[in-house]
Amino acid sequence: MYDLLKGLTVVEVSSFVASPSAGLYLAQMGAEVIRVDTIGGGPDFRRWPLADNGSSLYWEALNKSKKSVAIDLARPEGRELVQRLAAAPGDDAGLFVTNFPVDGFLSYENLKKLRDDLICVRVMGWADGSQGMDYTINSALGLPLMTGPVDDPRPVNHVLAAWDLLTGAYCAFGLVSALLARMRTGEGREIRAPLSDIGAATMANLGFTAEAMLTGHQRPRMGNDIFGAFGRDFTTRDGQTLMLLAITPKQWSKALEALGIAGEVGALEAELGVSFTVDEGLRFTHRARLYPLFERAFAARTAAELAPAFDAGGVTWGAYQPLEAALDDPRLFKGNPVFQEVRHPSGLSYPAPGAMASIPQDARGAVRPAPRLGQHTDEILAEVLGMGEAEIARLHDAGVVAGAGGR
Amino acid sequence: MYDLLKGLTVVEVSSFVASPSAGLYLAQMGAEVIRVDTIGGGPDFRRWPLADNGSSLYWEALNKSKKSVAIDLARPEGRELVQRLAAAPGDDAGLFVTNFPVDGFLSYENLKKLRDDLICVRVMGWADGSQGMDYTINSALGLPLMTGPVDDPRPVNHVLAAWDLLTGAYCAFGLVSALLARMRTGEGREIRAPLSDIGAATMANLGFTAEAMLTGHQRPRMGNDIFGAFGRDFTTRDGQTLMLLAITPKQWSKALEALGIAGEVGALEAELGVSFTVDEGLRFTHRARLYPLFERAFAARTAAELAPAFDAGGVTWGAYQPLEAALDDPRLFKGNPVFQEVRHPSGLSYPAPGAMASIPQDARGAVRPAPRLGQHTDEILAEVLGMGEAEIARLHDAGVVAGAGGR
Repeated sequence: MYDLLKGLTVVEVSSFVASPSAGLYLAQMGAEVIRVDTIGGGPDFRRWPLADNGSSLYWEALNKSKKSVAIDLARPEGRELVQRLAAAPGDDAGLFVTNFPVDGFLSYENLKKLRDDLICVRVMGWADGSQGMDYTINSALGLPLMTGPVDDPRPVNHVLAAWDLLTGAYCAFGLVSALLARMRTGEGREIRAPLSDIGAATMANLGFTAEAMLTGHQRPRMGNDIFGAFGRDFTTRDGQTLMLLAITPKQWSKALEALGIAGEVGALEAELGVSFTVDEGLRFTHRARLYPLFERAFAARTAAELAPAFDAGGVTWGAYQPLEAALDDPRLFKGNPVFQEVRHPSGLSYPAPGAMASIPQDARGAVRPAPRLGQHTDEILAEVLGMGEAEIARLHDAGVVAGAGGR
Repeated sequence: MYDLLKGLTVVEVSSFVASPSAGLYLAQMGAEVIRVDTIGGGPDFRRWPLADNGSSLYWEALNKSKKSVAIDLARPEGRELVQRLAAAPGDDAGLFVTNFPVDGFLSYENLKKLRDDLICVRVMGWADGSQGMDYTINSALGLPLMTGPVDDPRPVNHVLAAWDLLTGAYCAFGLVSALLARMRTGEGREIRAPLSDIGAATMANLGFTAEAMLTGHQRPRMGNDIFGAFGRDFTTRDGQTLMLLAITPKQWSKALEALGIAGEVGALEAELGVSFTVDEGLRFTHRARLYPLFERAFAARTAAELAPAFDAGGVTWGAYQPLEAALDDPRLFKGNPVFQEVRHPSGLSYPAPGAMASIPQDARGAVRPAPRLGQHTDEILAEVLGMGEAEIARLHDAGVVAGAGGR
């Protein structure tokens, strides 16, 4: 945990990936993030993967470093409490992240009545407010039809919820940007981040849409080929699969050198009258001629021979490895200072990451686990809303709020 | 364009996707983002897709709303100019985004000598500084082995550079967060964002790593099945492929209702002694029994029959459509106010997006196209570094800087 956002209080009422990850990023940069869930947990509280005791490893992963308040969100009194938390006073508060509907009890209009300069970041599915999730937005953008081997027409969904993740990080950015604006002008804002707009804008920001407009169709499916440059998976003599990539002239010449095929590629260049070094697009255009040269070079060597030669030569490559192997990979997990062994609400202890970026000047504070559901209910009601013990006890008795024991 | 970050000046020396997208997000929220490229363009200046005249549609998509300065980055005098731009004075400047190496001429140590409170956000490949790009990091995380049909063991790369995109948005968040900290404490920082750490942390933030530690292996490949709940692609009577998803109890009951299979599913629940409504994980566990019921229901109806029934019933679903169809889809592109028709440096006019989020209270300013390379060289040297005409002319004559004409 770093303290760039020290002093900020953010209230999060959310579920699934996008808005909880926004809260996670804010919390791990030092904000106090108060996640509010309905008593018993929201729709993501039992989301797989699960520990043997039924605890969600997913929930405890996305809610690290946060505080948890449990309130009955179906009841008017509970809803009013959440509204008051979201609109809590103070220059460093009134910061709210949610994926609840635009027109429900957490509408911007409702919250603005309680605090005129409130900042609300709202994750949405479709921009028109209709139900959409990462996988259904993704299917509408054409990507599953561009993904996977050329010889198989079936659509291939991504396994990583990329739109959720991008939306989450963009929402964290949106919230701190709106805070800077509020510090300058005194004005609050609602920032709506629909997955559909994030998806559509990104397809344009990467040139996919302009390409489709110009050619009349989307980029064709091409397996693992890197579009517009050189890259693909290749198989070594011992049957290992390695990814090799060459976009810059340097990456290209280093790959040829390490594989010992500079001469053959030079002969092909002479035959075709082109320079692959200068123009990476030509490597793509003529990839059907280039691939056999690479395939033969890979097939003549084992992965154990190629790996040190690639590393020594500064080649841009990677082995395909399963996650269980990655866990032992010191470049990713094993001994990575981003990770610390933590005891989680599931009762399990395992390494968990803090902030995804590193700040060489600052000490990485302890990685804080996710809270138990409702663990901070009383503390937050007292500190943020100024409630006394008797009032808090009444809310418990009435079943409007609950602590970590579920009551 | 919105003006949340109005007044900020950010200097970007970068290429490819991650750091340019960070600059793009900052620019479209109102910062003045000055992208510095070497004369003639960096390694991404001719990146595919290309317009017929050879202009990069990719470059002009990722550099919208920025200003462009062209400087010879190979020469000491050019390098010094870039360092001075990065470290420009003012409370709202000294903000720098790059993917250049940690130990090169744009090292934090070098820049800190010019401005003690500089904020530098640096995208990296591997955290140890070695060459890594989205696709080679991704292969090391196990995802390509989890992606694609169960009956095909070949690794499947993602087509969308998800790690680059997540890193870009997280860097924009990091920069604004560091600025908030500098306003509070007066201290600058370097924030390093290696794709490898962003990837590793995200695999943990979503529960993938805890799952692999517990089970000893990564999540098995399962085609388009949604892990831990219910969802997959199904084929209609007329051969259309639709994605259907049900995570919450409401999503589940609405899907059953719209497909008219509540009775059959109820019978299966009775047989198995389970409730699929309450526990989405059971839908996953028993999916081999559930799928045939859904397959038959889809196969009995055309997409044209199902679509309105799904929409009327509030079902979470999506059609797989190619991008050229999405371009006509009013939920994504056609008439979407996020997009405006813009004339780009390629000479082509086509719709391009502004900020990915929307702020109902604020007017969306005009979407500004990417600059021509070097278009703002003189303006920035004069305004930011206070250079006079004669000095700027000398730099042009010496070939240290260039304008939009390439000189």
